[in-house]
Amino acid sequence: MSLRDQIHQLGRQALEASRALAVLPAVSKNRILSAMADALLAQGDAILAANAIDLAAGQAKGLSAAMLDRLMLNPTRLAAMAQGVREVVDLPDPVGESLADWNRPNGLHIRKIRVPIGVIGIIYESRPNVTSDAAVLCFKSGNATILRGGSEAFHSNTAIAAALQSGGEPAGLPPHSIQLVPFTDRESVQHLAEMNQYLDLIIPRGGKGLIETVVRLARMPVIKHYDGICHVYVDASADFAMASNILLNSKVQKPSACNAAETLLVHQSIAPAFYAHIVPLLHAARVALHGGPDLTAAFPGEATLASAEHYQTEYLDLALSIKTVATLDEAIAHIRTYGSRHSEVIVTEDAGNAARFLNEIDSSVLLWNASTRFNDGGEFGFGCEIGISTDKLHARGPMGLPELTSYKYQVTGTGQVRA
Amino acid sequence: MSLRDQIHQLGRQALEASRALAVLPAVSKNRILSAMADALLAQGDAILAANAIDLAAGQAKGLSAAMLDRLMLNPTRLAAMAQGVREVVDLPDPVGESLADWNRPNGLHIRKIRVPIGVIGIIYESRPNVTSDAAVLCFKSGNATILRGGSEAFHSNTAIAAALQSGGEPAGLPPHSIQLVPFTDRESVQHLAEMNQYLDLIIPRGGKGLIETVVRLARMPVIKHYDGICHVYVDASADFAMASNILLNSKVQKPSACNAAETLLVHQSIAPAFYAHIVPLLHAARVALHGGPDLTAAFPGEATLASAEHYQTEYLDLALSIKTVATLDEAIAHIRTYGSRHSEVIVTEDAGNAARFLNEIDSSVLLWNASTRFNDGGEFGFGCEIGISTDKLHARGPMGLPELTSYKYQVTGTGQVRA
Repeated sequence: MSLRDQIHQLGRQALEASRALAVLPAVSKNRILSAMADALLAQGDAILAANAIDLAAGQAKGLSAAMLDRLMLNPTRLAAMAQGVREVVDLPDPVGESLADWNRPNGLHIRKIRVPIGVIGIIYESRPNVTSDAAVLCFKSGNATILRGGSEAFHSNTAIAAALQSGGEPAGLPPHSIQLVPFTDRESVQHLAEMNQYLDLIIPRGGKGLIETVVRLARMPVIKHYDGICHVYVDASADFAMASNILLNSKVQKPSACNAAETLLVHQSIAPAFYAHIVPLLHAARVALHGGPDLTAAFPGEATLASAEHYQTEYLDLALSIKTVATLDEAIAHIRTYGSRHSEVIVTEDAGNAARFLNEIDSSVLLWNASTRFNDGGEFGFGCEIGISTDKLHARGPMGLPELTSYKYQVTGTGQVRA
Repeated sequence: MSLRDQIHQLGRQALEASRALAVLPAVSKNRILSAMADALLAQGDAILAANAIDLAAGQAKGLSAAMLDRLMLNPTRLAAMAQGVREVVDLPDPVGESLADWNRPNGLHIRKIRVPIGVIGIIYESRPNVTSDAAVLCFKSGNATILRGGSEAFHSNTAIAAALQSGGEPAGLPPHSIQLVPFTDRESVQHLAEMNQYLDLIIPRGGKGLIETVVRLARMPVIKHYDGICHVYVDASADFAMASNILLNSKVQKPSACNAAETLLVHQSIAPAFYAHIVPLLHAARVALHGGPDLTAAFPGEATLASAEHYQTEYLDLALSIKTVATLDEAIAHIRTYGSRHSEVIVTEDAGNAARFLNEIDSSVLLWNASTRFNDGGEFGFGCEIGISTDKLHARGPMGLPELTSYKYQVTGTGQVRA
């Protein structure tokens, strides 16, 4: 069988599984999830042994320490993975929820109900826990998954998927509900992306290169988790203590997160005083600063001059672009030019300026007097998230279980026909 | 300027317009819509003169009578177009609607509000009224549009777009809110489809070839309006009079519509009696029949033998595929194999069978004892529709104004940071 035929077979099998999954009651899904969590622990030795093979190969290949850390599993991480599965048991099942319900003058009754999306492809890179996290969220929302992980984590992913399948199937998991593509070459991504007769959605999880490749090839919808060039704007009336708390939290609490701040904008009327307040704090937190000529002049040696390139960079690191703006309008214009529509904060005591900022900027989450880091499924109270969508169609911002569903209409009549 | 640069300029201008549109109050939008409707009538002579040029070229090119009819405008059709714009005035403005609202334990207040999608590309074929219909629905929902019509209707589309712009702008329409691409070659479709830095969504309106081209090229979300291979299943307990009413309405009321029925499935226990009842009625309505050997044997000369190809054909014409099935399961399996997830009807007096049909089939609209033709925005009470989506992401089934919007989150705090 050609590679294409083998991937199409996964697609056909997933479609078949998706039909059984769509009508599986919540109580059955929860029993299966518990069995999967048990199996991850019961097969922990096999998973860790598989992970050791990947780690050894990664070391031999010269992967960076950060990459190896992302790849690495240990008993603590495995327990967290199993615990993650158990937490999904507690989430409400979105499938079957009645979203709307109305009668028409001709007597037809229309009901809009939530249904699974169907078959979801997840294409991801090094972290093996995505295998479990993504599969169980898709499963709880009634979707079949086809997982295609990166080559560095291949043995780990295979062992994790085997544990989920062999744990779930005796508890009632429909066969082929969770399938791992047994190939890690680029061609397999292309076949998946073109297989729109079976895949209803692809979610790429990984770097910009991976996402762009999938977007270019895909013939079905793609939900993207692109970069976050997030801004904190400190307005003229901002409380300095609040502004510095929010900025430091947004920048340094987890610099590698997509919802970390990358740029500080400061109103010119308070810029000298605010910089005098915040620069020592940023310096103490080891944040590299790239600002305008006013900043570099005031803090020689502590900041370099920022170019347009800095303002469009997602550092994901202890670095910050800074700009002094003359007006709220200039702050909004800067965010429109350089932002990625992710998370933007205004710190102000002026409710009118806050309203303009929240209304006029088109980002998934706009915050007034709170950290960028709150653009997060857990912090929103969703219980979990498959990621933070940077798209505007279907799902935007934190994606929980409801964002992994579609809907259909059920119409009940008594013989009505159109006039 | 290259063709690509010219199309990118349209994109930049549309993005700029979309920012003004996003905050335009409903009262302003309605005033602008009324002015546009007036302008369509006031500039009626110019529009009809432009249409006459397209019609003459179409005749010279040998377009079919059906194609020429789709292209043709006259004072009645122009009045209907203007009336269509006035009806959009009466629809509620979806933008700014609060979709959800909650407080978190840390005191953050989160509000999910409806916002426009942004910039929408509409790529369509011969009917010039799409220029007006699509532009005003997108406008009312706060979106900027880039319209790219077919070459046959180029002069008509240009005159209609000019009327909307010149009528709307004195009333406050932001410049570049509605732009027509002044090119009709294939390359312009490609540049639009690749321009994901400006276009948030593409909606292709037209034949399968056009949609497939757009899907293959597009780097942004596409909402597709594919074909409807819609089924009517007459179950063992069906009321014959109701079943034949529904079937005839589904098939013959408007055979060219995507929600017209293409296949009749009949439970074997009633098939001979139901065929004896319905075949003369279908014959009187001039419907060509393609059925199984039982049908062709019972009605020699009135039906031809159906192949798999018939069951996967969207006739859009007075033709019907027919199949006798042994069980409800066989009916469901047939629909899964040959259907296009559009509209499916069960006619039955058995509530349990109806529930299985409505729950187990994955189509945008499932109907119990009502015509397929009710899968329609107007019939659903949406007041209008931009089409019937055959996608499962973002919008499924009839698309009204709310389906032309996205959402964002506005978070209000008092200095909260993440622990």
